[in-house]
Amino acid sequence: MLAGIGPAVAWSSQSLPAATGRKEVERWSVFERSFEGPAAGNPFLEVQFSAEFRRENRAVPVDGFYDGDGVYRLRFMPDDLGDWTYTTKSNVPELNGHSGAFVCVPPAKDNHGPVMVRDPHHLCYADGSAYVSFGTTCYAWAHQKESLEELTLQTLRSSPFNKIRMCILPTEANPQRFPFERNAAGENDLSRFDVSFFQHFERRIQDLCNLGIEADLILFHPYDKLGYGNMPPDVNRRYLRYAVARFSAFRNVWWSIANEYDLVKTKTMPEWDEFFRIIQEFDPYGHLRSVHYSRVFYDYSKPWVTHLSLQSDDFARTQEWLAQYKKPIIFDECKYEGNINRRWGNLSGQEMTRRFWIGMVSGAYVGHGETYHNQAGTAWTSQGGLLVGESPKRIAFLKKIFAEAPALDLNAPADPYYPFIAKPGEYYLYFFDYHQPLDYEFNLPQETSFQADLIDPWEMTTTPFPGSYKGKCTLKLPGRPYLAVRFRKI
Amino acid sequence: MLAGIGPAVAWSSQSLPAATGRKEVERWSVFERSFEGPAAGNPFLEVQFSAEFRRENRAVPVDGFYDGDGVYRLRFMPDDLGDWTYTTKSNVPELNGHSGAFVCVPPAKDNHGPVMVRDPHHLCYADGSAYVSFGTTCYAWAHQKESLEELTLQTLRSSPFNKIRMCILPTEANPQRFPFERNAAGENDLSRFDVSFFQHFERRIQDLCNLGIEADLILFHPYDKLGYGNMPPDVNRRYLRYAVARFSAFRNVWWSIANEYDLVKTKTMPEWDEFFRIIQEFDPYGHLRSVHYSRVFYDYSKPWVTHLSLQSDDFARTQEWLAQYKKPIIFDECKYEGNINRRWGNLSGQEMTRRFWIGMVSGAYVGHGETYHNQAGTAWTSQGGLLVGESPKRIAFLKKIFAEAPALDLNAPADPYYPFIAKPGEYYLYFFDYHQPLDYEFNLPQETSFQADLIDPWEMTTTPFPGSYKGKCTLKLPGRPYLAVRFRKI
Repeated sequence: MLAGIGPAVAWSSQSLPAATGRKEVERWSVFERSFEGPAAGNPFLEVQFSAEFRRENRAVPVDGFYDGDGVYRLRFMPDDLGDWTYTTKSNVPELNGHSGAFVCVPPAKDNHGPVMVRDPHHLCYADGSAYVSFGTTCYAWAHQKESLEELTLQTLRSSPFNKIRMCILPTEANPQRFPFERNAAGENDLSRFDVSFFQHFERRIQDLCNLGIEADLILFHPYDKLGYGNMPPDVNRRYLRYAVARFSAFRNVWWSIANEYDLVKTKTMPEWDEFFRIIQEFDPYGHLRSVHYSRVFYDYSKPWVTHLSLQSDDFARTQEWLAQYKKPIIFDECKYEGNINRRWGNLSGQEMTRRFWIGMVSGAYVGHGETYHNQAGTAWTSQGGLLVGESPKRIAFLKKIFAEAPALDLNAPADPYYPFIAKPGEYYLYFFDYHQPLDYEFNLPQETSFQADLIDPWEMTTTPFPGSYKGKCTLKLPGRPYLAVRFRKI
Repeated sequence: MLAGIGPAVAWSSQSLPAATGRKEVERWSVFERSFEGPAAGNPFLEVQFSAEFRRENRAVPVDGFYDGDGVYRLRFMPDDLGDWTYTTKSNVPELNGHSGAFVCVPPAKDNHGPVMVRDPHHLCYADGSAYVSFGTTCYAWAHQKESLEELTLQTLRSSPFNKIRMCILPTEANPQRFPFERNAAGENDLSRFDVSFFQHFERRIQDLCNLGIEADLILFHPYDKLGYGNMPPDVNRRYLRYAVARFSAFRNVWWSIANEYDLVKTKTMPEWDEFFRIIQEFDPYGHLRSVHYSRVFYDYSKPWVTHLSLQSDDFARTQEWLAQYKKPIIFDECKYEGNINRRWGNLSGQEMTRRFWIGMVSGAYVGHGETYHNQAGTAWTSQGGLLVGESPKRIAFLKKIFAEAPALDLNAPADPYYPFIAKPGEYYLYFFDYHQPLDYEFNLPQETSFQADLIDPWEMTTTPFPGSYKGKCTLKLPGRPYLAVRFRKI
């Protein structure tokens, strides 16, 4: 291929030049172009390569990256319809000064753009539609054999999950691929990324994107067995910029600076803060940014944090934290359904289901995980594979309920008598948790009539109450725990 | 009857003069003697009447009380075996200077004396035997018709409960008896106690004593409908001293200064503290003293508080609070089993059972309540009557487990991996709550062999694991939640 005119990788959302002769790129999809440049020396250290993308008076600086074999790539996710141009910049003459143009065309039906913060309590897609997060966790799924990864994708396809927490750096001692080059003795050359690792990884990001699943990418973690937990500061910075340059053009990317950051003993708070600032500075799209902890809250009030990523089951504090941090809250880890002997990995399906309900009606989002030993010989939350638990189909049921609700306008009161979330005057969803009242007097608006449903989150049934309701109205309830009641304006 | 030689009320534990001619009183039972004195004027205000009880060099000042119809009574609970003498003191000549003697004899088999603090974590009976508190709550049971009260006692007889929280002052608008005299218009004469109220009430205390149930007497509460919530300070003080004079000789009395003290808007913290001090000063036996709150902790570190009486389900903080206050902890109110529409009164039986287990293995004691509408047309926790819930028999099962354990030596660690309580080297009781591990490696002492049992708190079954266990040993578990495992030294 010739420098400056290399064909793009066939990302699903990038079309060939249209009849107009102008290349078309779907909004919030990946524009990519490759260039030939130097392969000698160490391009990762020696070659600077970036571009400026422009539309009208807007200019967006974007890092390119070296992809091995003398190939340099530029990726860009256009967020605005219409004509775009770009010009490359490099300290290497053959990569400098290339320009081009494309037209950004309307997105396909299922492309709603990246997820962003809509307001202090809610996430949404860039097109304004609701994004109600139902996440799961598969830390190392993209470090497995092809066949297992394909099984994971197949499992995800029929799951309710629209976000997945996954580590970029391997967590296990024997991953299928390594992010840095290694010599025969297995020693890392931290000055050279192994491009095949990243090519593989970004294919998995795109696979998730095709399934409508957000890839919550964990940049660091404390489970290192291969020498990536103690890299020098300049390697950490290069790694972050390389990840941003390669991955940020995928609309479904989120950044999680670390998993259990407080268990990483090799890094200090100034470093964590710096990592956030690097991501914030070089990600042209402002993808969501957070960090996950084990015991010690990161200070989520820091301005580069977009949302709270909690390891907690203290759902009752949701409104306190929403008021304090004014950012959406995701209980990313509230323990996992399973039967291993670790206390974080053996919730019953009932308890996992209950936690999703209580978290959602408290005004937060909740994350799932599963640690049964399954037929694939894996634990879902570690390697992916199969989901065998009882909660996913109940989470799907809950997701459907929120899909039918005015999700972006739902808020929960600070100190409810029984937890509920509502769009006042229009929609109310109560969850009674371990309470089993035989009746309850609801206080609906006087001027509006509502239909009411009894919802059984475990049996996944929705049973209408006869008649309509307004003002103070008492409903007879079955006197069983873990039920929900919904009111919808007629 | 003649002044000074009136027969005592026939308290079950007081025997007639023995062959020696000396009156015998069982240790920790009620010695009582009545005297005739003035009936004119207002004896409650005008007559001071007390006595000093002596054994060897010990002297115990004890208040007497007016019991109507010119009858004055003196009650005393001897705590030491052997000869006792007493002399009365009064500002009324006919009540002054009476003396007498009795001999305190060993207690009957089921009389272990009053409950006291044994050490910063445990309660015990005065004879040193274990008292493991399994309380219930019947606020107004002793303000009901005789037939309902008898039903309550019958229910208690076959229940596991060995403590009951009960209000002295009526909580309901139409009690069967009133603590103060009232005129035809229903106006209180706060200067005159209605002695029939107190005679009735102390009979119920004795009934409980006969069942081995501690009477946790609540002195004030915020539910007043009859004018007792806003009495002048001098009436409050007189009421406290009268209650102490009448009730404190019953060994099963505990003092709870108030229920939900922080909801009582008519009293200030200096007054609550003064009430504690009055009780402490005039109760000759130092019965247990605490106070119950709604939302705001009373400062349980104050020296007159013997134990923490909590309204909470925050069992995970037990060890923190034990370390901070160094006093035993009772979760007196962790919500009630039932099906009413108030959130404090509609736990499922499963949840109530779970709360007893988690509280007990956390190193605290737990209180029960029940608010099903039952056949007697009452809610147990308000009026008594019938228990219809699912938790009492499971609480009985748990009580039996603790009866078979070295209860006084059991302690819980501060931050357990899974909650357990243990006498190290001898006994371990784990509760896995919502966790459902398929196996778990326990870390027993290397030098001791243990037998192990799987306990199902709901099914009330105990299933031995085959063989014996020592050191690090892995048990296979059923992979269901809410199970317990017990190890006992062989």
